[in-house]
Amino acid sequence: MLDLKELESSASGTTFDLDSILEALKFNQDGLIPAVAQDIDTKEVLMLAWMDAKAIRSTLEEGQVCYYSRSRKTYWKKGEESGHKQKMVEMYIDCDGDSILLLVNQEGPACHTNRSGCFYLKTESDKVMISSDPIK
Amino acid sequence: MLDLKELESSASGTTFDLDSILEALKFNQDGLIPAVAQDIDTKEVLMLAWMDAKAIRSTLEEGQVCYYSRSRKTYWKKGEESGHKQKMVEMYIDCDGDSILLLVNQEGPACHTNRSGCFYLKTESDKVMISSDPIK
Repeated sequence: MLDLKELESSASGTTFDLDSILEALKFNQDGLIPAVAQDIDTKEVLMLAWMDAKAIRSTLEEGQVCYYSRSRKTYWKKGEESGHKQKMVEMYIDCDGDSILLLVNQEGPACHTNRSGCFYLKTESDKVMISSDPIK
Repeated sequence: MLDLKELESSASGTTFDLDSILEALKFNQDGLIPAVAQDIDTKEVLMLAWMDAKAIRSTLEEGQVCYYSRSRKTYWKKGEESGHKQKMVEMYIDCDGDSILLLVNQEGPACHTNRSGCFYLKTESDKVMISSDPIK
């Protein structure tokens, strides 16, 4: 099996077979890997969710971000119910093969609270402050 | 115990006690939560690592990002050995209390390969391409 360490010294532009890279990913005991979604236009980090190998392939093939919902124990094409779809523009795997970055076009708010993103609890040394309001 | 759902409808600017929020976080079975570091200037998503409650408090108190290394099973003040320190500027917790976003000032490359960030394996439907080179 490929060790991602072997890729570290490769020059940019070098390509590898997708299947061998997916085999080298470090999924957790539930077969999942954390995926961070960033808005490609605003650069806001919108959310963190989880993917398995099938969700990664679905996202790459369909261009529509598909996560695996740990609470509902099923695939979750973001926006399928809410209409707040995430179109994948670019996907990156990290050096250690244990996390994913998605650059996306987000339709409407990414957060279920109707805020643009999920990271709205600003945390300081003594308190936490709500830092944004839902989009009207 | 506080349920973070109770905070969803709070207006921006509302504050809560740090301890009660930390108690409500959903750490995994190892007591860890994923933390995403984003460069506050370039907006690049640099890396994803893990924190426990003590690492969160250390980061908030010292302003120097402290992770918990799962491989070395110990605290890891980013840059302590490499010199490539991460200064925490802002910290956010997400709506579900199961992930953290750090906005940071990064000294030098964030990735151990000397690339600016760890997400350099650009993943497409049939191949993966190295998308950046180490900083000289």
